[in-house]
Amino acid sequence: AVLHQATRSGISNPSLMHSPPLSPQLLNSLAPEENTQCQHGLYFQDGERRVDYILTYHIKKPSSSRSNRQSSRFTDNPRVVPEVASQDHSMDYHEDDKRYRREEFEGNLRDMGLELEKDEDTKTPGVGFVKIHAPWHVLCREAEFMKLKMPTKKVYEVKQCSGVGAKINTLVNKATEPLHPNVEENRAQNVKHLSYAFSREKQHFLLGSGVYTAAYPLHDVSTHCNQHLLYEEWASYSVFYKYQPIGLVRKYFGEKIGLYFAWLGLYTQMLIPASLVGVIVFLYGCATVDNNIPSMEICHPRNNITMCPLCDRACNYWKLKEACGTARASHLFDNPATVFFSIFMALWAAMFMEHWKRRQMRLNYEWDLTGFEEEEVSDHPRAEYELCVMQKSLKKEHKTQKVLIAYSWVFTTEKEKLTCRDRLPAYMTNIVMMLLMIGVTFAIVFGVILYRISITAALHMSNNPTTRSNVRLMVKTTAAIINLVVILILDEVYGAVARWLTVLEVPKTDKSFEERLIFKTFILKFVNAFTPIIYIAFFRGRLVGRPGSYLYVFESYRMEECAHGGCLMELCIQLSITMLGKQLIQNNLFEIGIPKLKKLIRYIKSKRRTFQEEEREKKLQRYETDHFLEPFAGLTPEYMEMIIQFGFVTLFVASFPLAPLFALLNNIIEIRLDAKKFVAELRRPVAARAKDIGIWYNLLRGVAKVAVIINAFVISFTSDFIPRLVYQYMYSPDGSMHGFVNHTMSYFNVSDFQDGKEPMDPHHLGYQVEMCRYKDYREPPWSNTPYVVSKEFWAVLAARLAFVIVFQNVVMLMSDIVDWLIPDIPKDISLQIHKEKILMVELFMKEEQGKMQFIDSMTPCDGKERNNHAPVARSRSIPHTYSHTHANNF
Amino acid sequence: AVLHQATRSGISNPSLMHSPPLSPQLLNSLAPEENTQCQHGLYFQDGERRVDYILTYHIKKPSSSRSNRQSSRFTDNPRVVPEVASQDHSMDYHEDDKRYRREEFEGNLRDMGLELEKDEDTKTPGVGFVKIHAPWHVLCREAEFMKLKMPTKKVYEVKQCSGVGAKINTLVNKATEPLHPNVEENRAQNVKHLSYAFSREKQHFLLGSGVYTAAYPLHDVSTHCNQHLLYEEWASYSVFYKYQPIGLVRKYFGEKIGLYFAWLGLYTQMLIPASLVGVIVFLYGCATVDNNIPSMEICHPRNNITMCPLCDRACNYWKLKEACGTARASHLFDNPATVFFSIFMALWAAMFMEHWKRRQMRLNYEWDLTGFEEEEVSDHPRAEYELCVMQKSLKKEHKTQKVLIAYSWVFTTEKEKLTCRDRLPAYMTNIVMMLLMIGVTFAIVFGVILYRISITAALHMSNNPTTRSNVRLMVKTTAAIINLVVILILDEVYGAVARWLTVLEVPKTDKSFEERLIFKTFILKFVNAFTPIIYIAFFRGRLVGRPGSYLYVFESYRMEECAHGGCLMELCIQLSITMLGKQLIQNNLFEIGIPKLKKLIRYIKSKRRTFQEEEREKKLQRYETDHFLEPFAGLTPEYMEMIIQFGFVTLFVASFPLAPLFALLNNIIEIRLDAKKFVAELRRPVAARAKDIGIWYNLLRGVAKVAVIINAFVISFTSDFIPRLVYQYMYSPDGSMHGFVNHTMSYFNVSDFQDGKEPMDPHHLGYQVEMCRYKDYREPPWSNTPYVVSKEFWAVLAARLAFVIVFQNVVMLMSDIVDWLIPDIPKDISLQIHKEKILMVELFMKEEQGKMQFIDSMTPCDGKERNNHAPVARSRSIPHTYSHTHANNF
Repeated sequence: AVLHQATRSGISNPSLMHSPPLSPQLLNSLAPEENTQCQHGLYFQDGERRVDYILTYHIKKPSSSRSNRQSSRFTDNPRVVPEVASQDHSMDYHEDDKRYRREEFEGNLRDMGLELEKDEDTKTPGVGFVKIHAPWHVLCREAEFMKLKMPTKKVYEVKQCSGVGAKINTLVNKATEPLHPNVEENRAQNVKHLSYAFSREKQHFLLGSGVYTAAYPLHDVSTHCNQHLLYEEWASYSVFYKYQPIGLVRKYFGEKIGLYFAWLGLYTQMLIPASLVGVIVFLYGCATVDNNIPSMEICHPRNNITMCPLCDRACNYWKLKEACGTARASHLFDNPATVFFSIFMALWAAMFMEHWKRRQMRLNYEWDLTGFEEEEVSDHPRAEYELCVMQKSLKKEHKTQKVLIAYSWVFTTEKEKLTCRDRLPAYMTNIVMMLLMIGVTFAIVFGVILYRISITAALHMSNNPTTRSNVRLMVKTTAAIINLVVILILDEVYGAVARWLTVLEVPKTDKSFEERLIFKTFILKFVNAFTPIIYIAFFRGRLVGRPGSYLYVFESYRMEECAHGGCLMELCIQLSITMLGKQLIQNNLFEIGIPKLKKLIRYIKSKRRTFQEEEREKKLQRYETDHFLEPFAGLTPEYMEMIIQFGFVTLFVASFPLAPLFALLNNIIEIRLDAKKFVAELRRPVAARAKDIGIWYNLLRGVAKVAVIINAFVISFTSDFIPRLVYQYMYSPDGSMHGFVNHTMSYFNVSDFQDGKEPMDPHHLGYQVEMCRYKDYREPPWSNTPYVVSKEFWAVLAARLAFVIVFQNVVMLMSDIVDWLIPDIPKDISLQIHKEKILMVELFMKEEQGKMQFIDSMTPCDGKERNNHAPVARSRSIPHTYSHTHANNF
Repeated sequence: AVLHQATRSGISNPSLMHSPPLSPQLLNSLAPEENTQCQHGLYFQDGERRVDYILTYHIKKPSSSRSNRQSSRFTDNPRVVPEVASQDHSMDYHEDDKRYRREEFEGNLRDMGLELEKDEDTKTPGVGFVKIHAPWHVLCREAEFMKLKMPTKKVYEVKQCSGVGAKINTLVNKATEPLHPNVEENRAQNVKHLSYAFSREKQHFLLGSGVYTAAYPLHDVSTHCNQHLLYEEWASYSVFYKYQPIGLVRKYFGEKIGLYFAWLGLYTQMLIPASLVGVIVFLYGCATVDNNIPSMEICHPRNNITMCPLCDRACNYWKLKEACGTARASHLFDNPATVFFSIFMALWAAMFMEHWKRRQMRLNYEWDLTGFEEEEVSDHPRAEYELCVMQKSLKKEHKTQKVLIAYSWVFTTEKEKLTCRDRLPAYMTNIVMMLLMIGVTFAIVFGVILYRISITAALHMSNNPTTRSNVRLMVKTTAAIINLVVILILDEVYGAVARWLTVLEVPKTDKSFEERLIFKTFILKFVNAFTPIIYIAFFRGRLVGRPGSYLYVFESYRMEECAHGGCLMELCIQLSITMLGKQLIQNNLFEIGIPKLKKLIRYIKSKRRTFQEEEREKKLQRYETDHFLEPFAGLTPEYMEMIIQFGFVTLFVASFPLAPLFALLNNIIEIRLDAKKFVAELRRPVAARAKDIGIWYNLLRGVAKVAVIINAFVISFTSDFIPRLVYQYMYSPDGSMHGFVNHTMSYFNVSDFQDGKEPMDPHHLGYQVEMCRYKDYREPPWSNTPYVVSKEFWAVLAARLAFVIVFQNVVMLMSDIVDWLIPDIPKDISLQIHKEKILMVELFMKEEQGKMQFIDSMTPCDGKERNNHAPVARSRSIPHTYSHTHANNF
């Protein structure tokens, strides 16, 4: 009664189902190959049956018949035992209990038709292995339940389009040939290997309670097998420019992992045009920097504008000329081309989504998943959930006598479930912790701001002129690095916190566990990565106040301003440091460095070993070497990394057009890195079926949506694009940009400084300063309402807001149009699906005809009943007409 | 070879498939009922076989053996005939050709297993009928191709939730019992009637070429049949408060029409809360009208503000007090509650969408459509398209000899198709015509504006004071009525134009024809209905200019202003007149009146008939009476009407909170009206399967999306909501609304009037006016920059724009959250689907077990092969374990 259904299993190689009666060729290929040396442990002892799956468990001591007998007595009367078993025996008993449950479980497996072989005398002490083989008829049965699509014997030709289209196609194919991996996807021989995941639910269940320690299928290392090909044509940096052999990946790892790599591949591919355009936009900025009137005006030698000091007392008045460098640099990222680029990137994101949908559909078709409806795969409650429910029901029953927890899971089939009231504490903890974590992020960002402010102030105090000139750059860089380090550390912390919180929640099913975990991790990591950037983009330099009435933090620190030329420059620096740093450190250090380090440690350890042990290791069975690999931890971290990167590429692309390029470079490495990891460094994951990438698609859509509004705000509020336009069309006397710099700055009468805030050295510039300028739209001191925001301020604000509305709606409309114009299912695929359906009808009609004739010849006596309906002869003639008319359709 | 597939047929009553061997009960029910009187023509002459479908054609003369022979000769050698056949014979030949094709077609039908009966000697002269019966085995075969789901014999109990939930459920059920129609949906007897639509593609094809004149299934008028029930419990105004018997509707008319009525029902139901809230908002406006400070200030007796004249020369200065009435009325629709209401309605629209998705899913489940994948039903080319392609290929072949067009359709199977170049003229015509039509709408709206301006000016000239006081109201009302009439006329014109344009385009398939037609009709009708409204909401009163520098149309007509209190009032009037007028006239006049009129005409005609004829009419066969009914023209007009109404309900709801109420009242009638039409006044439509409402859902989504942004603009730009807020928080000395009216009005020095534009009678008010006021934010005459827009203008504009951004994004976010929180598939449905799947597996496992045992007992000799895999005895025991573990899941 404990056993749960095994319907939800994944067969990674459906092409094995090719021809129902096993062909001699196929049987041959199932027989052990001549080169048995490298296939240690790939087969049962008889050398005939393949090992499809491995379960491992701990062995404490050699099996004793005593404990065995005892455990069977326990089962007969479980309630009595605890009183009998003394404290001394409890450990022993525990072992026996596990053994008993293993035996029960293995018995059930055998009942389901699986074949098992035990191996406790391996060279790995303390670990027992159960090898599982799934025979043909079991696979067939499972396949039927899963409604797996099989290739039939019937083959039809997919007609290529003729004429000019075909020629172009051929040319394109020839031109891109070196880009394709050297994999013959349709070799006749690759209907051979299969791995059969019998029931992942049970696995978790039993792993969770410690009966088994690990469960995994084997890596397939026979010489002409897929792993070798994957190694050469996929998991290697030398093939970075080639397409991935997705079909092979899917065959070896299953659809879920295949989809991940297909997605990653498409994303990387789509980044190519994006980074090209980004580079062009950047180059446009470089080329036009000398023609940019505002920065020319700032850098002009006759420019004589005196600026108000940047900090209280310690800082002095300064000449606008000094900001020449920043102004020129700003132009690189703040020019009209960036507006175009952010519109382009919004549409790019929409295109990417659409292309992915199409690609997914194509893969579904190629992998014969078109009819497969995503079953509620993990509808089955998780072990933790059942435990929780059980504890609750136990409490409810108020049974005072001790009940063996180990056995009471039988009760969980009762219709008890966790109500809202049970979950309330966990939910509350969740909300509080999430808010706390987000608060921590905010606090740290605020701390970095304080660091920047105070260090700047302190360094300004210094009398060393070189120090002072380098102040800004140094502070900016160190602050960005601190931010980066904090982000990296918190990333790890948040990952752990999210997992802990989700465990606390006790979600009912694996699917909901995964979704909740992803959702929480996503929120925390996103907030973590983007809070400092959002601060710089939208808040920095806006809460400054004005000369004579600055805004102070803790009553002594003035809020920081942006350099002249807008905050866009600083945003760009922060973005590039965060993005590059995250990628370099997380990818290279964590993903490459740490495995290398582990290998090194292992190497050092092996030095100390005796020769004998080393020799023994070489002769390890395949299932033993696999046992020493890291277990597969799911695709969540891989996807998460990529979605954060997608955020960098789309969210603030208006300020950093090179982001797609960096992402592209990173991903080219990332694909091969992940490939290597999957092929060589992890235990082979259980093949899982999937039609789509699930929640990740929704998250991507969400990010793309948010990107539109954020880019609108970056362009209109962070950059000077709108003020420039407003000046040009509303205020400029001659319609040019001349005079723009002067227009953006207000006047301040130095006599209006608060006491103690004026510069210590008013004669620093060599003359007595009476008026200084600052960047803001405010009334001059001589107006009726001095220092009040001016009409220009409101006009510019209105223009900024209008731009946001126009930008957002135009881009959303264009995205919707892109969405609408590109059909979700590629035309050729939908045609082929339709064609296949018709061919199938034709085939079945013929078969039915044959069957009817057979039955007729067998039992010619029961014609009476059929006469009730129609003349038999006529209905016999239908199929042909039918298939004919069906085929005619094409 | 001409025949096309018949897979795409609709069986409206899948429950007939209940038990594969015909049960005696079922056979009984298929036999003619005792009461044959009302069932004239429901059965073949033998009284056994049911008439499932009717084809009609014209008979020119009694069939002559000569022409028959001739036509058969034609077929043998079609190319030779034209030279032989003289002009004289062409008419005759045409008839024969049709006859020949009818015969070929009917032969094909017979080949497919259908049974036919001809009836040319009916009482309806000139019309021949072909009655078609689809025997049982044909239905079964078609059902298999369509993957129709059948109820199996296995029944399982849907477990009701227990405890408090169940009690509440029972209570609710009891309370709503009178709302449910008196229909036993699960009567054992209603597994009886079926209609079989053999092939809709062919139908069109042949109808298009005039071979048959009509094709339809019969209305089912036997006494205990569904039509009677539908008549009583559905198509009657007396049951307007009840739910619709959707299951019955679907059974009688098929899924497509069932879904329409389900959708209409849900929409009407959802309108109830919306109209409740709308009424409350309106009442709130009524209740607070006396506490509204701005209108109090306007109406205050001591208010002494002199306003600038509303037209040149003829008009005079006036006192703001005169606008008291409008200001108070404006408050009814322009108060903070409307802001809440438009947010509410945006969420309501999102909820409606979600609820519809769930309802659709539930219906899909109840109607056993869950597995049914929407096939490319109309992938088959339309007759018109094939004709076009054929003509092209004929031209291409440059054959100079005359080829019989009637026979050359055989060539269309060649892979010829219409390219972009062929379609270019049609596309160009389409675009030009669409733009032209939209241009016509704009021109008419502009014409109405001119009418308003000129009539106002002319009436102002009049010296009659009562005329002048009523000027505004009269002009407004007449203009709105003109608009309405124009909209109604153009609606009909545009419907025809859209159809014509779509025919011109020659779309390939029926589906694309329908979609293109709907799209074009939607755009034209929407533009038509909403252009005047959009003009009033967003342009009127904004292009006025200012005193001394007004904007003139044609250099003599001043653009119109809004009444004091904003244009919201006028928008509201326009909206209500358009909406109510459209509904009353289109529904009542067109849908009720015209059929009544037709009946009257028929009655008058019948008076003239002889008694004999009348008597004969009474004895008409059922298929003859049905022949006189109007053919079913598709659901497009019904949906279109509703979607335009949905537009009225959502798009401008901020200005007219009573719109949902009017829509609700209309729809309650509409449902029963449509029901009556379908049951009694139209030929029974061919039952068509559908999983969803198709393109209409997308259009609804589109309207709901546009509604958010339009409401944001209405609130922030059309209403005075934002200026009031800005005044209260930025300018008001005491934080109250006192002084708001004064603040919104600028000063004008009357000496600045252009020559000839000042009022003729400056002393009209009894004193010399020096300054007059006008509603705008401009600098006073005494400032440095007189009459330039002021700082307040920009501040208010910025606030308005900011509101739009905030409103749009908040509402969109909330809609997305609603979308995300409400699962698309109701929980109970997804559970039941899962459960059914498991039960099905169990059933099949048992069956397979039985089969294996049977085979074993038959052929006990071939055990060798099976031994290859596993012990047979063990695999035999699997099914039970299996089903057990499966069932355990619940």
